[in-house]
Amino acid sequence: MVMTTQDFDEWSPQGPVTELSVEHCWNLLKANNIGRLGLSVDNKPEIFPVNYIADGKSVVFRTARGTKLRELLTNNSVVFEIDEQIENGSWSITLKGTAIVLGPEIPNSPHADELPRWVPTAEYLYVRITPTDIQGRQFERQLRLIISER
Amino acid sequence: MVMTTQDFDEWSPQGPVTELSVEHCWNLLKANNIGRLGLSVDNKPEIFPVNYIADGKSVVFRTARGTKLRELLTNNSVVFEIDEQIENGSWSITLKGTAIVLGPEIPNSPHADELPRWVPTAEYLYVRITPTDIQGRQFERQLRLIISER
Repeated sequence: MVMTTQDFDEWSPQGPVTELSVEHCWNLLKANNIGRLGLSVDNKPEIFPVNYIADGKSVVFRTARGTKLRELLTNNSVVFEIDEQIENGSWSITLKGTAIVLGPEIPNSPHADELPRWVPTAEYLYVRITPTDIQGRQFERQLRLIISER
Repeated sequence: MVMTTQDFDEWSPQGPVTELSVEHCWNLLKANNIGRLGLSVDNKPEIFPVNYIADGKSVVFRTARGTKLRELLTNNSVVFEIDEQIENGSWSITLKGTAIVLGPEIPNSPHADELPRWVPTAEYLYVRITPTDIQGRQFERQLRLIISER
């Protein structure tokens, strides 16, 4: 029996996992501005990348009057996800909750005016996700232990 | 009336969009290995980060016998998304289709053996997503044109 250790330059959600505190999750949410909105329409999932801001209580993004908005109005149970690859692995945060369409006015959230504002003629609406659940996980890259019979 | 142009270091799905060809999408899928699986259970969306490989026809990933697998078996209509920030904006690819649980053996796909294999005792199953729809979009950062009355 030979035991060897190989270093894999990969990470996986199936690797060792550390749960992140809710405070840590919000700090990461505040420090980033691109995430993914998950929707479900007729029990089929959708994912849209969105530019967002987070204020420690909710996540706010803007959307045009397109598919995403129509689907949001059909089913406002949403999931929002951000992740990042870091030196020793990766982390991911998912936030589940209800999305409320606020309207075209900049909402009263810290940093809401930092969302990109494009040409004034475009019709955008602000949407706020208030989470009922927030989960953060850090995935470590790990050494692979191979036990082989020789 | 004063016209000024400001450079915004942000991108948004609501900015200028270029559709990517299916071939371009597969090239980007092959060149990456971390994506996000979107599921729907009881018409509520879920997003899980996954390590994957793509062979030009399908996407293969591995999962343990946990929540993700249970939900996949409940509803195998899935969406899979990858994205990346690039110098002048960002791109995102979404692939919709059906997920089939293949089993514990490495599937007969090119590069399938490149998926991280962890300790042999862990129970993993391979899952293949065969797309019925693939969509790629590139979002450009844009200059903001401000037209203000003075």
